[in-house]
Amino acid sequence: MREIAPVDSTVAAAAAAELDRKTKPRGSLGRLESVAVQLAAIRGTLALGALPAAVIVAAADHGYAQEGVSAYPQSVTREMLRAFAHGGAAVSVLARTTGTRLEIADVGVVGAERHPSIRSVRVVAGTRNATRGPAMTPEESAAALSAGALLAGELADDGIAVLALGEMGIGNSTAAAALAAALLPAAPCLVCGAGTGLDPTGIRRKVDAVGRALTANRIDPSLPLEALAAVGGLEIAFLVGAMLAGAARQLVLVLDGFIVAAAALVAARIAPSIRGYMIAAHLSPEPGHRLLLEELELDPLLHWQLRLGEGSGATLVLPLLRQAGAILCEMATFEAAGVTDAGR
Amino acid sequence: MREIAPVDSTVAAAAAAELDRKTKPRGSLGRLESVAVQLAAIRGTLALGALPAAVIVAAADHGYAQEGVSAYPQSVTREMLRAFAHGGAAVSVLARTTGTRLEIADVGVVGAERHPSIRSVRVVAGTRNATRGPAMTPEESAAALSAGALLAGELADDGIAVLALGEMGIGNSTAAAALAAALLPAAPCLVCGAGTGLDPTGIRRKVDAVGRALTANRIDPSLPLEALAAVGGLEIAFLVGAMLAGAARQLVLVLDGFIVAAAALVAARIAPSIRGYMIAAHLSPEPGHRLLLEELELDPLLHWQLRLGEGSGATLVLPLLRQAGAILCEMATFEAAGVTDAGR
Repeated sequence: MREIAPVDSTVAAAAAAELDRKTKPRGSLGRLESVAVQLAAIRGTLALGALPAAVIVAAADHGYAQEGVSAYPQSVTREMLRAFAHGGAAVSVLARTTGTRLEIADVGVVGAERHPSIRSVRVVAGTRNATRGPAMTPEESAAALSAGALLAGELADDGIAVLALGEMGIGNSTAAAALAAALLPAAPCLVCGAGTGLDPTGIRRKVDAVGRALTANRIDPSLPLEALAAVGGLEIAFLVGAMLAGAARQLVLVLDGFIVAAAALVAARIAPSIRGYMIAAHLSPEPGHRLLLEELELDPLLHWQLRLGEGSGATLVLPLLRQAGAILCEMATFEAAGVTDAGR
Repeated sequence: MREIAPVDSTVAAAAAAELDRKTKPRGSLGRLESVAVQLAAIRGTLALGALPAAVIVAAADHGYAQEGVSAYPQSVTREMLRAFAHGGAAVSVLARTTGTRLEIADVGVVGAERHPSIRSVRVVAGTRNATRGPAMTPEESAAALSAGALLAGELADDGIAVLALGEMGIGNSTAAAALAAALLPAAPCLVCGAGTGLDPTGIRRKVDAVGRALTANRIDPSLPLEALAAVGGLEIAFLVGAMLAGAARQLVLVLDGFIVAAAALVAARIAPSIRGYMIAAHLSPEPGHRLLLEELELDPLLHWQLRLGEGSGATLVLPLLRQAGAILCEMATFEAAGVTDAGR
């Protein structure tokens, strides 16, 4: 996985040239064109087809929850897992509306929730409290990562072309903040925000917890897998694995919010060329999100103040990607349409 | 039409309260929630249904074309009309991809293009050159406006809920700039940009043409219909009519770029409450677009550097509106899903 091939620059150039032949002034479809070029470069072809998509919602619990870093009790992770499966959660609705396959993965929720549409890949029932030592053993982290890689491979086998990535886990914006602080690196206060709705006192508790996690786990920023195990989370490791295997299979990786971006940073530190496979769906109000996207050199598609997680933002933009693909594949050229080209 | 009712604030409040009961932290879906509230307020109900959409591409030619204000020859208006009908233009592709009804209206193209899917509502074969006097007589402008109103009414009768608005007409960014300069009011150099691809010399010619149009037609900024006839265009008048009648029938008005925004300003000066029915799809690089959206107090959904026109940007965002509607109508409440609500 460390040897993910860069996206295909020859196909990218061919896609850009093809777009310049379409009946529109050069570049006049702006970001829609650059997305189309990226899709072609990732897939290695101008014949993008229908771009079948799946969204993974990786869920797990966190020892950080003991530190009072969430507005919600830990039981909500499990409750939301059930809500995803029953079809009433935001990501369930958005997946249905956009024709996206929904994959719910329980990577380590406290209290197993059984449902035919929940994929149980449980490594351990939540991480340990990283403010006192490693959140996971290297083996636990690797097991979660492998499970994510397996799922992405299975989706690629099923013909999925676009992989939207989401997460659920009470306390996981603290895990993401700790990873961002360790790997960027950055001061904890720069990467800790309100998450799903913390008040200023709660945010101070979060900054303090991240600081203690960094002290308890001496992290070398050049060792992303070690950082992941020490201060990350099971669902984050799962997402790292899904990204690495997904890129290796030429899947388009659509990132949701801050927590997924932290996983993306780990993946990019392992395999830098993976960044070419990534599309940032949106920029959330979480302060660390902007820092992570800047580090990854990703320009978000939407600035919509989304901060729900669970893959909602990544699923939301999938129709925009399909439209970019259709522009490349279905628009007529100036010549075919008999329209005068001003050239340039 | 001057008495368009404001959007329903009672329904808006009910929609906001309903969104607060959904299984997500309050407000965590950001702009998706505010769009959902606006859709409900416009339609006057929380039961939004499937939100069937149509895109109108209003096309006409312009006397301004004689002033060398476009990178393309006038014949391209007619050629593009044919491309829309044949299905290979950007808006044709995007309409198909998004399940949107495409309505192509020839309001006054030079050289009629006959095709079963082109609606001929020709008032006159292009406007006169407004740098030397009125572009249209008041009667011509009113006829174009009425034709647009008729089409919007017909679409409402057919069950359309969302009306995307687009245009085609070589020279029409000059007409839009003249309207913006007259009505905002603003200096011509602040509202003239590259359009579909002018070079700096061309932009100077455009600024000069707008200045001469304003001199040749002494315009009172408090008389929007007079300004529309004097320096506007046939397709712009058609769009004003479609907006006014559309809002009167509680259609959601999705604005494309700069030219449509100029029509929206005319409509809003006639009936200020129409602004509540409008959603700005995107912000283009055209400098006058930002000024118009600020005047209309509309916050664009996308910042994607789109500058094609023909309704492409407005059509692009339609799936996002459907997803906003689905969030309001299909998500489960905390209570129904059995999820603990942190409240607040």
